[in-house]
Amino acid sequence: MTDTATQRLADLAVRVGANVQPGQIVAISGEPGKEYLVREIAAAAYRAGAKFVDVTWFDPWVKRARVQHAPDDTLDFVPPWYGDRALALGEHNAARIGLSGPVAPGLMSDLDPVRSGRDRLPAVKENMQVVNARQVNWTIVPGPTPAWAELVHPDLEPGAAYAKLWEQVARVCRLDEDDPVEAWLERRGQLIEAAGKLSERRFDALHYEAPGTDFTVGLLPSARWMAAKMDTCFGVEHMANLPTEEVFTSPDPTRADGRVRSTKPLVLLDGTVVRDLEVEFRAGRIVGLTASEGQEVMRTIVDRDEGASRLGEVALVDREGRIGELDTIFYDTLLDENAASHIAIGTGFPFLVSDEDAPRVNESEIHIDFMIGSDEMRVTGVTQDGQRVPLLVDGTWQI
Amino acid sequence: MTDTATQRLADLAVRVGANVQPGQIVAISGEPGKEYLVREIAAAAYRAGAKFVDVTWFDPWVKRARVQHAPDDTLDFVPPWYGDRALALGEHNAARIGLSGPVAPGLMSDLDPVRSGRDRLPAVKENMQVVNARQVNWTIVPGPTPAWAELVHPDLEPGAAYAKLWEQVARVCRLDEDDPVEAWLERRGQLIEAAGKLSERRFDALHYEAPGTDFTVGLLPSARWMAAKMDTCFGVEHMANLPTEEVFTSPDPTRADGRVRSTKPLVLLDGTVVRDLEVEFRAGRIVGLTASEGQEVMRTIVDRDEGASRLGEVALVDREGRIGELDTIFYDTLLDENAASHIAIGTGFPFLVSDEDAPRVNESEIHIDFMIGSDEMRVTGVTQDGQRVPLLVDGTWQI
Repeated sequence: MTDTATQRLADLAVRVGANVQPGQIVAISGEPGKEYLVREIAAAAYRAGAKFVDVTWFDPWVKRARVQHAPDDTLDFVPPWYGDRALALGEHNAARIGLSGPVAPGLMSDLDPVRSGRDRLPAVKENMQVVNARQVNWTIVPGPTPAWAELVHPDLEPGAAYAKLWEQVARVCRLDEDDPVEAWLERRGQLIEAAGKLSERRFDALHYEAPGTDFTVGLLPSARWMAAKMDTCFGVEHMANLPTEEVFTSPDPTRADGRVRSTKPLVLLDGTVVRDLEVEFRAGRIVGLTASEGQEVMRTIVDRDEGASRLGEVALVDREGRIGELDTIFYDTLLDENAASHIAIGTGFPFLVSDEDAPRVNESEIHIDFMIGSDEMRVTGVTQDGQRVPLLVDGTWQI
Repeated sequence: MTDTATQRLADLAVRVGANVQPGQIVAISGEPGKEYLVREIAAAAYRAGAKFVDVTWFDPWVKRARVQHAPDDTLDFVPPWYGDRALALGEHNAARIGLSGPVAPGLMSDLDPVRSGRDRLPAVKENMQVVNARQVNWTIVPGPTPAWAELVHPDLEPGAAYAKLWEQVARVCRLDEDDPVEAWLERRGQLIEAAGKLSERRFDALHYEAPGTDFTVGLLPSARWMAAKMDTCFGVEHMANLPTEEVFTSPDPTRADGRVRSTKPLVLLDGTVVRDLEVEFRAGRIVGLTASEGQEVMRTIVDRDEGASRLGEVALVDREGRIGELDTIFYDTLLDENAASHIAIGTGFPFLVSDEDAPRVNESEIHIDFMIGSDEMRVTGVTQDGQRVPLLVDGTWQI
């Protein structure tokens, strides 16, 4: 890590990611170990004219104390002011900046997974509500920490692991370009073009084929594909993820059939690692779920509510993205989900379909992405009249 | 610092300080560098049956970025959800635990003091409102950090300074007793007994005698002495400060006569150290003030408003208190004000007198305590009919 890389990442988060506007309140979500980056982002936000930077820090060690000691029937309690603040940020049309990357991997691993699963913080359901109403311009960028680096590069010395992770983050965030802001605007253009072509074709379904995967998911008639750019209801463009390499939509939650094998480990918010996840869908619903690690936690999660066992998102990723080429498991959805095509169980994005179709989009308190893509995967679009159109073959767009 | 000391301090804050009740929400205010203690307190609170522990972290480096870069007219802005949360904690009858001790002394010293002064965070005015309405059971305990240790012990190596500060904190918090909780309940009993006797006797005045001091201060007829214990409006006893060694009341601001010599250096909020302070009072008002260091700053302060040159508090500390014997300036009011008997110029506490006398209690924008006690000091109570009753001799209670 150099100061320059930290400053460039902070600047990118503020200028391209959230696209902070003068006079805005900027909410940053930080965790212990990311202070150096939170402070750079705060400074960059104030330089961009922010009215106030409101940092909330989430400490997983305090959560651990709760899961260890608190009475069972209190574990899903969330103080009302958590949701109130989220809604107020929406009402104020604030900007939000989050930092991905685990700070304490494995911290919960010796605790009862059922109890861990009941405490969903730092997730707050009102945040999703505000995001769906497009009331905030937001972004998530990677926040490297030594603990994360050791998880990703366990064979290196701690200092070397941290340097390596930062080098990779700089690479995938295009901080090594002369002008990272310009580089992202260009990549964004490519992704938006692919999304536009997918939207135009109005496919009825997608068919995924790969080792362990033979799976079809239905799309809603009005489904729009999206990439790399969002707009708030008050007209501010932002990039919700940096890096971002995906084009995505919300599928029909009643039509998913077949088996899917995940191609990368999935790391949950509480640090639980789910490995070798295999899921079977029937009529949109998960009817079987196995994993070599984290199986019970995942089963608890998909039982949480009706929508938790159905799909909210399908996303396609080509091999032009810089993440896949690193051949590294980052144990972080932001990076890993942009390494490969993925699907997400749980809540979907009603704004990606017509008002008429919006009630059909999946609803849930959760949203969990898992990677299913690889260079061996073949994704085919199926049109309304049954025609099969190759979309991604060998990681390359066919349309 | 040993784990045992941290755990004992955490346990003391929860069980004796805030006196956390089963089912309560517990709000902890932390700062970077105090994570180790916040986490122990959270665990202790959950073990005591807390429903939820809500930690807010205040990062002075983010505040520095604001003071450096934000527009002038935004510096006093506080997001409405800060006050809303404070009021909600009151409505929920939560417990609150704060940690004293600087984490970044001098961090703002190169910035414009006028701009720094506009941003009052982390102070939120609704917190005071909730405290005054006795809606929360709260406490403040010391939270040692390496940066604080270096300020207190600049001549020691950083590691040794931190060890020394912790050793001192453990000593003054009675963590070295077999049962610190029991030790504090016993000490509290002594202080409450002394306060009760002082209140009962309804002294008309106190007479202080020591080298450089010969000073009489009048008391209001209804003056009540307070010590070591507060009660919430819902009947929970708590100790707002740990350690606490003082019994105190608000005097008659029109009756103070004679000379007082301070016995310890005084540290002002901006870090100025005032040494060898000597003050002369006539008819309640300061008519002369000298100091070997910080004299002009103090003279400016006592001229601030009418009440700034009159007394708002008199506090007696016996030699059973453990802070004075350390002969250390802690640069922290929690510890320094409990080192010795002291008086405070500026605003007083109307709740310590009858409604009828309340308007007579001193009012000012300031409240500055300075230590005047020593083992050589003799404090005598003067009754309404002129009888003289020894109160403190050789640092020992006589009543």
